[in-house]
Amino acid sequence: MHTIRLNLPQQAYDIAIAPGGIAKLGELMSHLHLGKQVLLVSNPTVFQHYGENVIASLENAGFDVNSYNLPDGEQYKTLASIEKLYNIALENHLERAATMVALGGGVIGDMTGFAAATWLRGINFVQVPTTLLSMVDAAIGGKTGVNHPQGKNLIGAFHQPKLVLIDPQVLQTLPEREFRAGMAEVIKYGVIRDAELFAMMEQCDRLDQFQYLSKNLLQEILVRSCQAKADVVSKDEKEAGLRAILNYGHTIGHAVESLTGYRIVNHGEAVAIGMVAAGQLAVNLGLWEQAAQDRQLALIQKTGLPTQLPTEIEINAIVDALQTDKKVKAGKVRFILPTKIGVVTITDQVPSEQIHQVLQQM
Amino acid sequence: MHTIRLNLPQQAYDIAIAPGGIAKLGELMSHLHLGKQVLLVSNPTVFQHYGENVIASLENAGFDVNSYNLPDGEQYKTLASIEKLYNIALENHLERAATMVALGGGVIGDMTGFAAATWLRGINFVQVPTTLLSMVDAAIGGKTGVNHPQGKNLIGAFHQPKLVLIDPQVLQTLPEREFRAGMAEVIKYGVIRDAELFAMMEQCDRLDQFQYLSKNLLQEILVRSCQAKADVVSKDEKEAGLRAILNYGHTIGHAVESLTGYRIVNHGEAVAIGMVAAGQLAVNLGLWEQAAQDRQLALIQKTGLPTQLPTEIEINAIVDALQTDKKVKAGKVRFILPTKIGVVTITDQVPSEQIHQVLQQM
Repeated sequence: MHTIRLNLPQQAYDIAIAPGGIAKLGELMSHLHLGKQVLLVSNPTVFQHYGENVIASLENAGFDVNSYNLPDGEQYKTLASIEKLYNIALENHLERAATMVALGGGVIGDMTGFAAATWLRGINFVQVPTTLLSMVDAAIGGKTGVNHPQGKNLIGAFHQPKLVLIDPQVLQTLPEREFRAGMAEVIKYGVIRDAELFAMMEQCDRLDQFQYLSKNLLQEILVRSCQAKADVVSKDEKEAGLRAILNYGHTIGHAVESLTGYRIVNHGEAVAIGMVAAGQLAVNLGLWEQAAQDRQLALIQKTGLPTQLPTEIEINAIVDALQTDKKVKAGKVRFILPTKIGVVTITDQVPSEQIHQVLQQM
Repeated sequence: MHTIRLNLPQQAYDIAIAPGGIAKLGELMSHLHLGKQVLLVSNPTVFQHYGENVIASLENAGFDVNSYNLPDGEQYKTLASIEKLYNIALENHLERAATMVALGGGVIGDMTGFAAATWLRGINFVQVPTTLLSMVDAAIGGKTGVNHPQGKNLIGAFHQPKLVLIDPQVLQTLPEREFRAGMAEVIKYGVIRDAELFAMMEQCDRLDQFQYLSKNLLQEILVRSCQAKADVVSKDEKEAGLRAILNYGHTIGHAVESLTGYRIVNHGEAVAIGMVAAGQLAVNLGLWEQAAQDRQLALIQKTGLPTQLPTEIEINAIVDALQTDKKVKAGKVRFILPTKIGVVTITDQVPSEQIHQVLQQM
């Protein structure tokens, strides 16, 4: 088991990366001074694979467990789903010392976290991410929330978990497309912060399916990605500055996701497209070299992720959508742009014409 | 202007008590490094009296102001109202540096605060309380939220304001019944923490209407109450321990409010009834003297607040409702009980029979 400690001003918690770790969840939680009540929140697909094991582990450690499945999919990441969780919390008389455990991907984690953040003004929360995307990104750092019909993650709260438990073995049942989506965030960490991780992935022949990764590479991917996220979050919990670099590829990515109704491209695919766009912007602005952009492009293609805009999206619609992004400051769109592999810069000085031009080339 | 500084681990803010202060709101806010965007949230009644002055003050200080009125009343303190605020926030393109200003009583403050806590995972928030109840209690301390159909304030977040501005002059337009409701919380501060404040009020002939209070007494009431609340909150922001004493009178009070559908008795009236019940429990358990309970009863009666249970409530229903209170820990109901005027103790060792007995006598 590899443990990363995330230190924040008001609290600290462990990110435990442990093959077969699901069976140890109850024991790990038993050291955290939590109340006995646990509400396990999952979706039908994930629950079918791992629900029983998780419940057994929790009950063996003395917890009283109730469980609830939310429907699967980004389109259910709504306030209406949160209201369902409130009703379940009330039915189960969840008290302030109770814990909500999220077993699932980013959607389940974000929603369970937001319900935990706002039930009785905040109860305990534990993340057991089951997708690569949520393991390396969504489950770490305390961002929780739901979508507004007109924008992703516009409603939410910062609420740190008490524990993040990552069991790489659950990736065996992850659909290929979901695996590749997670790889987008891993590539992101390579570009923004970890040139070694980037180079390790370049050396692997195939990255488009889980089965082609050695156990060692998978472990490096998880540990280095989680460490990168933890480092950035510990320096800037509420995204006052540095944390913004984690949004590399997300500025245009969010617009693409939103404009396709969160259905045609998934989050990771949108980030991949967004990284290609951000990289090309950086090239055009003279910030980084075409050779580096080519390496990024090749790595994204090797994971089987898209590098071009979906044909049905109009470029003007993307530029408009950028204005409603949370990262907008005084009407200026903020971009994270690479300067070399492993280093990025933050700027709100990107002319609209440049954005138009890059998008037209994609 | 009397200013109380509330120091918290991650931030500090001022509670400014200033007759005529509404005209200075913009200037006070201009020192707080807030973005230019302001969304003023009020209700039609309060907005009619003070909306224009507030907007003028903000605009003179350079803020861009939009305003929105929520319907007046506890029955609208729902997630549906919060969704309306989200829609307005989206329409007005509120950014992370934007500020929501609550102009109104506790309902407006709690809802505006919760919307500010959860829009873009938290934007700035300023409280301009216009009822006595919200001036001395709800507006200070960062508790925000809405009611669940089956329980008061079950949904919410801690989100501290950047400023609380209290203008005593606005109490002139406050309905008498609302004024008396606020006096319940003032009496509470006397019992739990400030015997001098309690004695000052005993010396005043009439307390049932705003007009009978001297400017000096009103100032003492506001300053001492806000100071008491700020002291307690600064020592225990998230209600881990000490802050629970602020719930004196609220344990049974919440049950009474909830069982009458938040309509027949208002919050202050319910707290008055709850204080009488808690005081009698303390007498019966040998914790404080009948003479002190008699003084409390007389002071509550002098303010015109109720001291008996509404006849339509069944005692068993109250005891059941106590179980769903947020303050329940491991199934045990926690009571705040006085030991002398100015001092209380916290206990979860009150036998149900004692609760039944006291309620039957009321």
